[in-house]
This record gives sequence, structure tokens and C-alpha cells, in this order.
Amino acid sequence: MYKQWKLGACLPTFASCADRYCLSGYGRGETTVEGMLAAAKKVKGLDGLELVGNWHINDGNVAQVKRQLADAGFAIPMIVPDLWTQAKWGRGSLAAVDAKIRREAVAEVHRCMDWAEAAGCPFVDVWPGQDGFDHPLQADYQDAWKWLREGIAACAPHNRKVKVLVEYKLREPRNRCFVSSAAKTLLLIQGIPNTGCLLDIGHSLAAAENVAEAAALLADHGALDYIHWNDNYRGWDDDLIPASVHQAEFLEIAYWLRRLGYQGWLTLDVFPYREEKVAAAEESFAWIRELFDAVEERGVPAITEIVRRGEGTESVRLVRELLRGKR
Amino acid sequence: MYKQWKLGACLPTFASCADRYCLSGYGRGETTVEGMLAAAKKVKGLDGLELVGNWHINDGNVAQVKRQLADAGFAIPMIVPDLWTQAKWGRGSLAAVDAKIRREAVAEVHRCMDWAEAAGCPFVDVWPGQDGFDHPLQADYQDAWKWLREGIAACAPHNRKVKVLVEYKLREPRNRCFVSSAAKTLLLIQGIPNTGCLLDIGHSLAAAENVAEAAALLADHGALDYIHWNDNYRGWDDDLIPASVHQAEFLEIAYWLRRLGYQGWLTLDVFPYREEKVAAAEESFAWIRELFDAVEERGVPAITEIVRRGEGTESVRLVRELLRGKR
Amino acid sequence: MYKQWKLGACLPTFASCADRYCLSGYGRGETTVEGMLAAAKKVKGLDGLELVGNWHINDGNVAQVKRQLADAGFAIPMIVPDLWTQAKWGRGSLAAVDAKIRREAVAEVHRCMDWAEAAGCPFVDVWPGQDGFDHPLQADYQDAWKWLREGIAACAPHNRKVKVLVEYKLREPRNRCFVSSAAKTLLLIQGIPNTGCLLDIGHSLAAAENVAEAAALLADHGALDYIHWNDNYRGWDDDLIPASVHQAEFLEIAYWLRRLGYQGWLTLDVFPYREEKVAAAEESFAWIRELFDAVEERGVPAITEIVRRGEGTESVRLVRELLRGKR
Amino acid sequence: MYKQWKLGACLPTFASCADRYCLSGYGRGETTVEGMLAAAKKVKGLDGLELVGNWHINDGNVAQVKRQLADAGFAIPMIVPDLWTQAKWGRGSLAAVDAKIRREAVAEVHRCMDWAEAAGCPFVDVWPGQDGFDHPLQADYQDAWKWLREGIAACAPHNRKVKVLVEYKLREPRNRCFVSSAAKTLLLIQGIPNTGCLLDIGHSLAAAENVAEAAALLADHGALDYIHWNDNYRGWDDDLIPASVHQAEFLEIAYWLRRLGYQGWLTLDVFPYREEKVAAAEESFAWIRELFDAVEERGVPAITEIVRRGEGTESVRLVRELLRGKR
Repeated sequence: MYKQWKLGACLPTFASCADRYCLSGYGRGETTVEGMLAAAKKVKGLDGLELVGNWHINDGNVAQVKRQLADAGFAIPMIVPDLWTQAKWGRGSLAAVDAKIRREAVAEVHRCMDWAEAAGCPFVDVWPGQDGFDHPLQADYQDAWKWLREGIAACAPHNRKVKVLVEYKLREPRNRCFVSSAAKTLLLIQGIPNTGCLLDIGHSLAAAENVAEAAALLADHGALDYIHWNDNYRGWDDDLIPASVHQAEFLEIAYWLRRLGYQGWLTLDVFPYREEKVAAAEESFAWIRELFDAVEERGVPAITEIVRRGEGTESVRLVRELLRGKR
Repeated sequence: MYKQWKLGACLPTFASCADRYCLSGYGRGETTVEGMLAAAKKVKGLDGLELVGNWHINDGNVAQVKRQLADAGFAIPMIVPDLWTQAKWGRGSLAAVDAKIRREAVAEVHRCMDWAEAAGCPFVDVWPGQDGFDHPLQADYQDAWKWLREGIAACAPHNRKVKVLVEYKLREPRNRCFVSSAAKTLLLIQGIPNTGCLLDIGHSLAAAENVAEAAALLADHGALDYIHWNDNYRGWDDDLIPASVHQAEFLEIAYWLRRLGYQGWLTLDVFPYREEKVAAAEESFAWIRELFDAVEERGVPAITEIVRRGEGTESVRLVRELLRGKR
Repeated sequence: MYKQWKLGACLPTFASCADRYCLSGYGRGETTVEGMLAAAKKVKGLDGLELVGNWHINDGNVAQVKRQLADAGFAIPMIVPDLWTQAKWGRGSLAAVDAKIRREAVAEVHRCMDWAEAAGCPFVDVWPGQDGFDHPLQADYQDAWKWLREGIAACAPHNRKVKVLVEYKLREPRNRCFVSSAAKTLLLIQGIPNTGCLLDIGHSLAAAENVAEAAALLADHGALDYIHWNDNYRGWDDDLIPASVHQAEFLEIAYWLRRLGYQGWLTLDVFPYREEKVAAAEESFAWIRELFDAVEERGVPAITEIVRRGEGTESVRLVRELLRGKR
Repeated sequence: MYKQWKLGACLPTFASCADRYCLSGYGRGETTVEGMLAAAKKVKGLDGLELVGNWHINDGNVAQVKRQLADAGFAIPMIVPDLWTQAKWGRGSLAAVDAKIRREAVAEVHRCMDWAEAAGCPFVDVWPGQDGFDHPLQADYQDAWKWLREGIAACAPHNRKVKVLVEYKLREPRNRCFVSSAAKTLLLIQGIPNTGCLLDIGHSLAAAENVAEAAALLADHGALDYIHWNDNYRGWDDDLIPASVHQAEFLEIAYWLRRLGYQGWLTLDVFPYREEKVAAAEESFAWIRELFDAVEERGVPAITEIVRRGEGTESVRLVRELLRGKR
């Protein structure tokens, strides 16, 4: 039933998953692209893989990577420009104080758009995670916002076959990031053609948003283009298995995606630091299937009727019945 | 199955539930004790009612209240001394700077212990919610802790037929309360006979605790005497229906209560501000029953086996299977 | 120096400050409008008082209230429609499921706009605090947002001499409110003439915003019209004395208000639950003066130079030097 | 004035400071011990350096390291057993499910105790950061606590010239760590001679504690042995410059350390990810000096008088006057 969507995964889902203390990761991940790909092939139902620019795809290998993934049965739904893994981006990318860095960031997005077109991928994901600040009085918010708008406006027209999505996040790696919420993202891309939004569920949870509400707001503005799936404890981007923490909220997300007619990718962005990666991906998809199954069992119209009544206890009962599969 | 426990409710569950903006409450609660009692009688499976000293039970009415509740089929599992609804407690009760107030607080607990004995109730619940501070440099933590220890030590021996439980809470009504966690409560009552702990699940969630872990710690110290059930979003004591927010955590609580051999009361402390009170109480018990049923369906030993392996993905799968009632 | 602004206070600053446990308040507030006004007159430097519709000003007393405040030397910078203190608003005002309630909410705002004009007050403050939800699957986010837009659009043209400001808040009295951030407020009022935003500093802090960044965003959209001053611990709207918790952030706010050329009111929205009200208001203004004095001592251009460099350690040193008044 | 304490720094303060995205760090740190030591020598007033076992000190180099640091004018106040940077500790150290790992953890602590004695260092810091869980139903809390108690009891008697301190933290690298608060640490070490507590201010802030209150509680139990200094935004262990976020709380810490008669080390545990390390360390000490200076300017008795009154507004005024150096 949930199969009107395609199931994806970020390739690093299968990697070693370092944290700041244990840079090697905890010993269960793959360290080569080939290894990650081999792991990904073991995951039942996986339709596509997200790649990071330069790390996984670049000028020299784009044709080969496209073929390699196609042979393995995978589409490439997304290419993510690397604006965050190198020291040079440490003080910002599209909104760096240094104009040269800002230009390099735009050029990096352009390159990824071209690789995306060549690889048959419809999107790039601009995540300005290094654009932010760590302390009060450390950023000129007006300059930063102007630079972000200019940067997105400079990226978007480069290649109309590839849409530029912006991914928001409240914090990490900076203590505060400028592009921090669904509503700010809408203000950022407003009026710039060929742009949209990537909703990372975990980022939304950690930004004190209600995720389904954010999805509805984005959809109302025509900007709900792509979704990253993961869960957390709301204080940090823990990148856990979807619905492992917030079962009720994930049920609500499933309902709203059905209701909003979302037909894009459901892509995992999980970091199974200490876990077997294939098992973690499969459990993630198992949860996603359960969520949509639970919605289908009751049906969107029956759920909508309760949603529209606004009675707290009825909504709690609905969640209980949907989860437990009983009435 | 869950029937080795008794199901209780705080009497104010059925009251008008004021907040600081709308002092009348939102129009669906009872304003008299008789009305609350009539509402409580409609709740299927309810075994007992918690009373607040002076508000519901006092020197003049203790025999009558006992009979009134017995006639309605209710036990009185708990009497709560009123150390928090009057202006005089605003700057502290057992740990007030004013020694006279500290003495009055002890006397109030003593009175409630006597009413409890007379009413056949085994516990009083000392909740020092007004004992805390709002700002840095506003409290002498050493004095406060000493006074709290002295206060509990002065209360406990008064009547050995009634045990003095301490209820902890991180904040509200003070911005920070002194007795804020399970571990601090254990340090507070350490070495004082006839004392124990009341674990309010919502208080534990809002104190950044893992509730089941707190329950195990209390049980290991012989101090898991009584449990208040409610849920919240972890930032405030929202007093929502149990498991309406944290399904996985509540499943874990049910498992641990079974494993720890807890045989006390499961008492609602919910504030259905805008909801029909009887329906909210019944949905609360429906969730509690589902939780314990889910644990029984799999069985404590089978769950323990997975718990002891410490594999993240297996625990996520277990939660999914328990909630969905499938394997 | 800070005197290009006017200093205001919400009238309830001087009231009894109930919380949900102690409905009488803690004994130090005034219970009549006359008493509050007498208290307000004792506060040095206070220029005006915010009133709540119906509670303080209404059809029968508008001329009298205007004269009473003028005689006391106070302007009326703001009238707040009461969309939150009565049971009938409990399930929403401008976005209530019940269309009749939605119409009543608009009518209430219209009435307040007329009283405002009659009282020489330039603004009304629409705070849709009851418009939200408490649980997943309890709200139709698309309907709610549409109704909010329609409601604001119905309010704004009523009287062009009075501007309709929207005040956002993440939560309380609802567990989640729809109008929760500066960016969402901008989307809400976008394209509707005669609207603007009321930035409540505490609401911004509790919504995981950086307040100065929110102020800059609002100003860039021409919507920084009015500011409520109070502080909190970020998890709840504690309504504490400004800068009592977040000294560095408040310094940054003072700098940005100077830089953005803000010339509106600086109005207290504090709840001194247990404190003498006049002393709390005076300490609030003392902090506000210190903040702007610290900015002036160094000067906006010198601060801007460091802000634009984006060096964390330099910003920390700047805060230290500004607070300590040394270099 | 503050000079009755000694100022220390963790050696990694001067290192490259990786995060999970940018494993190289942001380009301003040292990559060799010699480089870090050279940087440390540039910091005015630094008295000693904390070392990590194996990384900085080991069987082969203990005499050399001792001489190297002595030549540079540095004491070694602390050696930290490495129970967290290697994949083998990923699923726990002292409380790992695997008994072999638990034994290795104890052996590692023993080794560090011997190196400490040889290096003239009085403490080891046992930080069980990998001992915890990521999901509900992933840990046997009773087993874990028993193993932790057994582990500390096995470590402590090994070498009575070196005291075993336990450092608590709520989360990271695990989503939840077992040893999470000051009060739990006291329960953990209770009755085990030659043990104490390391209070990391940032860990305390992120554990929803009031730091000064935690310090007083530890001191009342004779367990306030050592302090790590850093600040954060309370949601994560950001390891920022002390007092860069929480000025009022740090003032209160300084007051309480003076009042409690603390005479141990004040050691930086900061991660200046994007900053020059020497400047970050110097700014940290500048803040620490200012805090203690502000306390001395007013004097402990005068502050105590206000602290003991418990009046909120007076405490706010006190903080303002202490910070601004005026009355």
C-alpha cells in the first residue's frame, strides 16, 4: 500500500558512523563505497541511494557510478553537495563572511547539479549546516540572510532539470544554524524559481516543530519535495530508526503524507552508530510500513473525521487503536 | 492480567482544571466534592481516590468521607498534605526560610497522617513543590537540604501506621525545586525509617530521567512505594493521559513494574483541561491495560532476554512488535 | 540614552499572578484596577500601560479609563483582546473548529480596535494562544492555518487607525500553538495590510529562537512593531525579569534594537508571582537601562565590527567586556 | 585573589576538535602532543594539564612525560582512563554486558592509577560515557548499576595514593548514560573508600541540574574533588568557554566554591572547534578571574546575606550589580 512511494537511504547509513570521541566508528560499518553498496543491496525493498558530492560522485566517475547503481537496481534520488565535511566550510558556506568561500559554495552546488543531471537524479540538497553561529554577537543576521538568499538565487537557475532543495536544521554542527525551521526555509526560497524544501523529520523534531504540521505548511506552499526519515529525543539530531522514539508523531506523519498526496521519496538518514547497518535499515522500513499500514487499516477519511473534531481524548484513543490495530 | 494492581485517581482529575489564564477552567469539570465523586463513580474499574488534606478531608469530616467513599466502592490509597495551594507556602514549606512556616508544614503532615490512619489510608504524599528557587543566588542550598532532612525526620515517626512518601519534581510551581529526582529523593530519605518515594511518571519524564530506570533505582533501595500516572512533552508537567506521548517508554515502565514485582497503586494524576473527565480517565486506564497486556502477550522472560542483549535494533523491533501485537 | 524608547508595562504585572495551584496568587498583588494603577504610579520612568479588553477597558468605561491613565501620566500603547481567559475560547479563537467562535473572536478584535482608537492607542495585540492542539492527530493544520489567515484578514481592515499585531508563542495554554515563531507569523500576515508582529522576548526564547535574529528577520520584513520584555529558562514562559537569566542574549537584543533603529515601546510582560510588584518592575527597568548603557559605552559601530568578523572567542570577550564595563 | 586554586586544562583543548561531520577538525588545532604542549605554554597562568591514558601517557613514556611537563612548568592534576575512544568500549566499559570488557575497563583504570602515581598525579577520572543505552528496553538497569558499583569497588582500592573520581553525564556518546547526575554519582560511590566526584559544569547544566546546588550537595557528602569548566546551551555538551552562555549561574558557582572552601583545580574542558585554541583558553581564564573578582568585590558574607533572604528580585539585582561592578 505504501508502495506509491519509493524507499531510499543515504549511502552513509552503511558507513562507520564516527562520533567526536570515536573517530573510527564502533566497528560495524563499511569504509569503502563498494562495501556500502554491497550492504545496501542486502536491504529488502530499497529503491535508491543518496550520494554526497565528491565523496561518492564526481567529475571522474559519474557515468561509472550511475551504471554501478543501476546494475544494483538503485536509482539516485538525491545528490548532496559537500558544504560541511571540510575545514574550509567551518565558518560558513553560502553565508560565509568570506566572499570567496560563498562563491565556492555556489560553484559546488552547480557542480552537483550537473552530476545530478548526468546521473538522472532530480534533486540536489543544499544543507547550510555550517552557516550559523555559536555565540551571541557573533553574526550579522541581516548580512547572513541576504547572502543565503543571494546564494540560493545564484544556485537555482544553473540547471533547470535539477531542483534545488534546502534542508533546514536548528543546530549542529553550529550551535545555531540560520536556516532552522520550515517557515524560515519558505521565507528563504520565496520567489526563487526551481527551489523547494527537504524535510528531515529528525531536524523538525529537534527544532521544536510538530513534523506533520511542518509538512502541511510546506505542502500548502508547494514546497514539500523530499523527506528524510529518522527519529531522535528532540534535543539533538540522534539519527535513530524512524518511530523508535515518537510513535504517535510518526503515525500522524504517515496520515498527513497520505492526505497531502505526497508521492516522493521516503529516504533514511539514520546513523546506526553501534548497530548492524543492514538490520537497522530493515527495521526502519519495517516501522515505515507499519505506520502506513495502520493508516490504511482505518482509512484516511475516518481518521480525518476525528482529526477535525479537535477532541484530545478522541485523538489519544485513535492513536492507541491505530498502533494496537484494534478498535 | 494487570489486576494485581489497583487503579486509582487523584480526585482533582474530575475538577475544573484551572490554568493561570483561565482560572475558571474550561467548563467541563466538577466544582464540588460530591460532583467529583459522582463523576469518579462512572469510571469503570476505578478502585480508589486520592484526597488532598483540608480540601477533601479534615478534622470535621474524616468519618463521613471514609463512609462516603466506601459506599461508592472506593478505597483511599493516599492523602496529600496541602503544602502548595495557599499563599503562605509560596516561599517554601518544609524548607521555608521562616522557621514558623517549617513547623506549620510538619504539623500539616502530622494532621494528614492522623486523618489517613482514621480513613484506613496507608500513605501520605509529601510534595515540597514550593520548596525551591527562581533565580541564581536565591537559595542557601545547604540550609534548604538540612531543613528538608529535618522536616522529613520530624514527620516520619509521628504515626507508624502511615508511611511518609516524598514526591519529587524538577520544577513548577518554583522554577527549580530542591527535591528534583529519584536519586536526590533517595539521598533525602536515607536513614529515616517509615519513609519512601512516590514516583510521578510525568515528573520523572520532565526531569530528564528515564522513568523505568528511576523505578529500578528506587526499587533497588526499597523505596518504590506508589506511582502517579500521566504523560507530557518532557518540558513541563502537562499531566496528559498516560502513554499519549511516550508509548515506548510506557511499555518499558509496564515491563519493569512486572519485573520488579511492584504491587502498589497505579493512580492517575492527569489534568484533562479541555476534555470530558470521565472519558479521559477511561482512556487512561485503557492505555494502562494495553501496556500490561502487551507485556503479558510476549512474557517477561522473553522480553528480559532481549533487554539483556543491549542491541539497539532488537529493542526497537521489540517495541514495534509489542505495540502492534505481532511478530 | 535609551530614552528614544518608551517604557511600558502590562497592567497585570501589578496583579496577584495566579498559577494553577494557588489561584489566589501569593499575596503581594493588587486585585482591583485602581490598586494596580496606584502601584504602577510608583514605578519610576514608566510611560504607559497595556490594557486587556473587557477586563480593563470596555464600551462603558473607555473615556474614563483614558482620562484616568492620562491623569496618572500614562499612555496606552496597546490593548489586548481577551481571546484566552474565558472557557469559550478553550478550544480555539480565530482558528476554533466552531465557526461561531471564530466570528466572535473577530468581533472581539474589532471591539478592541475601536476602544483603542477612542483611547488614543495605536495597536491591538492578537495573541491566538488557545489556537493549537494538545496531541498528535488532534488538529487539521490546513484548516487551522486557513482560518487564521482569514481571521487576521477579517480583523485588519476594520479600523486603519489601529494596527493589528500578532503575538506568537510556541506553547501554553495549549501544548502546541499554531502561531509559534517569528517566521510563521510573517507567513501568516503576509500580504495583509495593517498588520505587524509583537515580539515577546520570552516567547521567542522558549521557541528555540535566537531573539536578536528573530528581531532582525521581522525588521527586514517591516514587521517589528512592538516588544514584550521578560526572561525565562527556555522551557516555559516563566515571565521573569528581563536579563535575569540570559544576560548575553539580552545584550545582543539591545545592540540589535539600536542597530535596527527600533523606536517603539519596551513593555514589561513579567509575572512576579512571589515578589513585590513595584520592585520587580523597577529592577526590570534597571536591567534594561544597563543593557542599553553597555551598548552605548562601546558604541554600535565598534560592536558591529566584531559582530561581522564571526570569531567566537572575540564575541565572548565582547560580551564579557560589555557586561563588566571594562576593556 | 582567585589564586587559592590552580588553573588547568585538558590537553585536547589544544587539539583539532573533530565533530562527526568534519573528522579533521576545522584547521586550527595541533595534531601532536608536542604541538599541544607548545600551545599550552603560551597560555598565561596555566598551572597544569590533564592527560588521557594511552593517548598521552603510557607504560613507555611516563617518566619522560612527567619531566616534559615539569620542564614546561605544568603539574599533572588528572589522568583520564580511555574508556571511550575505541570501538571496543562502544557497548559499555564498566557496565558492558560482556564480562571480559568489564574486566578490561577495570584493568585500564588500574593502569592509569599507576601512571598517575608515577607522574605525581593525585586523581584518575572514570567517565563511563559509553555505559548507557539508546532506546527503551535496551538495558537491564539493575545489572548495569550492580556492575558499575562492582567496577568502582574493584578500581578504588588498587592504589591508595590515587583517588578514583567519577564523572557524570546525562548523554553523549550514548543517548542516555547510567551515571547521569550528582545525586546518582553519590549513590554509586556510597560506602566505597578512595572515591569522589568530578563535577563537569557543562555536564551538570545539560543534566537539568543547578550547578551550584550540585556542588553544595557533593560537598555536603565530602565528594567535591575536582571541577571541569565549560558552558553550553543546556541541550548538549557544547564545551564552550565558561560563562559564555550562563553568566548568572557561573557567578553563583564562583560564590559557592568560595563559600564551600573548595581548594582544588579549575580545569578547562572546552572544545574550541573553530577558534584559536590559545585565545579560547585565555578568554576562559579571563572569565573565571572576573567571576571570582566579582564575588570578592562584594564579599562572601554580604552575598550570603542576600542568598539567605530568598527574595527573587533582590537576587536578580545582586547578579546585576556583581556583573556590572556597581551598586
